[in-house]
Amino acid sequence: MKIRIALAAASSALFFALPASAQFAKPEDAIKYRQSAFTVMAAHFGRIGAMANGRVPYDAKVAAENAEIVATMSKLPWAGFGPGTDQGAPTRAKPEIWREGDKFKAASDKMVAEVAKLDAAAKSGNLDQLKAAFGGVGQSCKACHDAYRTER
Amino acid sequence: MKIRIALAAASSALFFALPASAQFAKPEDAIKYRQSAFTVMAAHFGRIGAMANGRVPYDAKVAAENAEIVATMSKLPWAGFGPGTDQGAPTRAKPEIWREGDKFKAASDKMVAEVAKLDAAAKSGNLDQLKAAFGGVGQSCKACHDAYRTER
Repeated sequence: MKIRIALAAASSALFFALPASAQFAKPEDAIKYRQSAFTVMAAHFGRIGAMANGRVPYDAKVAAENAEIVATMSKLPWAGFGPGTDQGAPTRAKPEIWREGDKFKAASDKMVAEVAKLDAAAKSGNLDQLKAAFGGVGQSCKACHDAYRTER
Repeated sequence: MKIRIALAAASSALFFALPASAQFAKPEDAIKYRQSAFTVMAAHFGRIGAMANGRVPYDAKVAAENAEIVATMSKLPWAGFGPGTDQGAPTRAKPEIWREGDKFKAASDKMVAEVAKLDAAAKSGNLDQLKAAFGGVGQSCKACHDAYRTER
């Protein structure tokens, strides 16, 4: 029994023997982390959307500041989708994420790439470029949500 | 009645007529946002702590990457503490935050300044500097939590 527990502990330690950037003590922590990263990203992406859609006046400086935060955030959530983090806290993440790792990775890479374009467009100070790039990011968000996030 | 509603709407709009970087549709959104920013910050700060405390080997590159994310995150939560965001979702934020705005602002500025030192120390590649700066940030976290966050 003791051996079994020790093996389980060792296996769990191995499980989380990922790069320091991907370490979480419990699956619950990883789930909370990835959800938090998406929440922060969505808030700042929404501010760019308000400008892209004309709901608030375009302010190039504010757009660039928000895009830079979105770019930073876009790289973070993925470390929170490690093996074994499909449960442990309420999550809308579909099991397909862990069954189709390569496809999920491609979808997340696509989003990161589109966000990098948004960041460049925001820095350009050109509203039309910002609008186009905003649309590209939105499509990459939607594609991933449609495939890998359950409806509420 | 219609006028009263219109006035309420106008007042609510004014209420949130903050810089675009501080806009939230509902207090609940602001609360969720600030909590998410703290969650992401804590995860990355914790990775630096693991190195500062010798729980994982020191890796200058990983420390610098994490410190840069902490520095970005440190500036974000404060926009989520606007007027009227003392309630609307579960929160451990004490009412003192809105009663002692200046003191809370000073405490948050202190944290941001300590994190900037941490970022510089991490970039230096010197573990002793990192440990010292980590302690400074930790103290600024604790001071603010002691004064402005309720115990669980």
